[in-house]
Amino acid sequence: MIRPGLDPVTFVAGTTGAWAIDRVTAIVGPPLPAAARLEIHRPNATADGAWSLKGVAGQVRYVEAREKGDLNALSPPLGRTEATQGALIPIRKSVEWWSLAQDERRAIFEDHSRHIAGSMKYLPRIARRLFHARDLGEPFDFLTWFEFAPEHASAFDDLLATLRASEEWKYVDHEVDVRVSR
Amino acid sequence: MIRPGLDPVTFVAGTTGAWAIDRVTAIVGPPLPAAARLEIHRPNATADGAWSLKGVAGQVRYVEAREKGDLNALSPPLGRTEATQGALIPIRKSVEWWSLAQDERRAIFEDHSRHIAGSMKYLPRIARRLFHARDLGEPFDFLTWFEFAPEHASAFDDLLATLRASEEWKYVDHEVDVRVSR
Repeated sequence: MIRPGLDPVTFVAGTTGAWAIDRVTAIVGPPLPAAARLEIHRPNATADGAWSLKGVAGQVRYVEAREKGDLNALSPPLGRTEATQGALIPIRKSVEWWSLAQDERRAIFEDHSRHIAGSMKYLPRIARRLFHARDLGEPFDFLTWFEFAPEHASAFDDLLATLRASEEWKYVDHEVDVRVSR
Repeated sequence: MIRPGLDPVTFVAGTTGAWAIDRVTAIVGPPLPAAARLEIHRPNATADGAWSLKGVAGQVRYVEAREKGDLNALSPPLGRTEATQGALIPIRKSVEWWSLAQDERRAIFEDHSRHIAGSMKYLPRIARRLFHARDLGEPFDFLTWFEFAPEHASAFDDLLATLRASEEWKYVDHEVDVRVSR
């Protein structure tokens, strides 16, 4: 039985799946093996493939109550007909990041890097879901998933450029950008 | 390869293990099956037994920088010769708890319930380790492990009574108290 609110997922890259893999770019650290298609299994599954990455949605880790209300009000659903472009961006943060206390991580995440406030202005154009993978012993700490219409692809690139220039991103030690379309 | 700082563990109850299981008490919800001995596997392992529970130590979730310094300074190691009493207390929190924002959970945890400050005065008498299990899809969200000398057993019971009377504990919907000795 899956616990309510946990929402497990496995992203499986191989020869089948609803999404075509258009481009894999290693932003920090090594890339992922090449594959043609990406399938999203929910709930998660043991699966073969060129690679597969597991995560769970779970609870928010830095978002505060006021922000949560704003995010919930503005966040679009997945699977919108016009959202034919997607990105899976798995991210790992450094040992230094994880050894920080909760308030130190929150300060870098939002007070210095404006992760929530800066991302909010891209809503509802960009649909976004975050899956946590660190406790699962996976190679990445987070799996971030995005869906958007082709006309918002450059806005999505702007969002990524802003995040990657932030103080928070100094703690990212592995990041791969997997672009997909359907 | 195990990620640095993750520190996986499996508590296995069965017929072998360094600790004798003296008493199992269901505090909230159903108990765990009876067993004679408890073994602690680090890193974690797939294991048979009457029951087994997995977790990972990972990063702090509510502790702030000043508190972290105090806790690190006062926290004793595991395995002290005189610490022949132990307790494994697995805990699950409600869907309502996990749907709260980070600042709401922190407020209940420390501002209202004094979880950190109230526990600190029992250091270094009580050695304590927290393992997270929620993201692993385990039946409990946390595995808490304690070691203490027999003369501090009543202090340990005082600590538990204080926590169980707190606002935070209103969100606990499954808790089992497994007392062990070696």
